[in-house]
Amino acid sequence: MNDTNVIYIGQKPMMNYVLAAVKRLEEGGSSVLIQARGRSISKAVDVALITMDRAKGELRMGDINIVTEVLPGVDGNPLNVSSIRISLSRP
Amino acid sequence: MNDTNVIYIGQKPMMNYVLAAVKRLEEGGSSVLIQARGRSISKAVDVALITMDRAKGELRMGDINIVTEVLPGVDGNPLNVSSIRISLSRP
Repeated sequence: MNDTNVIYIGQKPMMNYVLAAVKRLEEGGSSVLIQARGRSISKAVDVALITMDRAKGELRMGDINIVTEVLPGVDGNPLNVSSIRISLSRP
Repeated sequence: MNDTNVIYIGQKPMMNYVLAAVKRLEEGGSSVLIQARGRSISKAVDVALITMDRAKGELRMGDINIVTEVLPGVDGNPLNVSSIRISLSRP
């Protein structure tokens, strides 16, 4: 997995990320990894499913991983945040 | 998968669902299926990871599935909603 193929889901509108994923794949990438933390996880699932739908059968849903990431909090205490990684690849 | 072992994630505080999942497992269930739609998906991931953490190694993360569900919308038109199912089971 080339790091340039990771799509980090943030605060932008959902379709921005769908179009980014489609573009990476059209430019010859064999896979994309859709990654999100916290409340953006729901959006990541939407992005993955809509990207799959747009690909009309040319993409395969790969592994979906969820893990707790420990980030430095604003007050210096560690902060536990859920994260998801959804892999989409050409068959 | 017995249907009574499905935990549907809704608007209640997250820990309600964690405690429900732990209770089902303590009552002898061999697995729980954590299920959510739309914006509750992020909460479902939190519930799964915290339930895993509480189980201190006694649970195994099973399959994670995401699908688009087509629901009847308020205006009668079909509504596409993302959904997730996370399976946790005893090894």
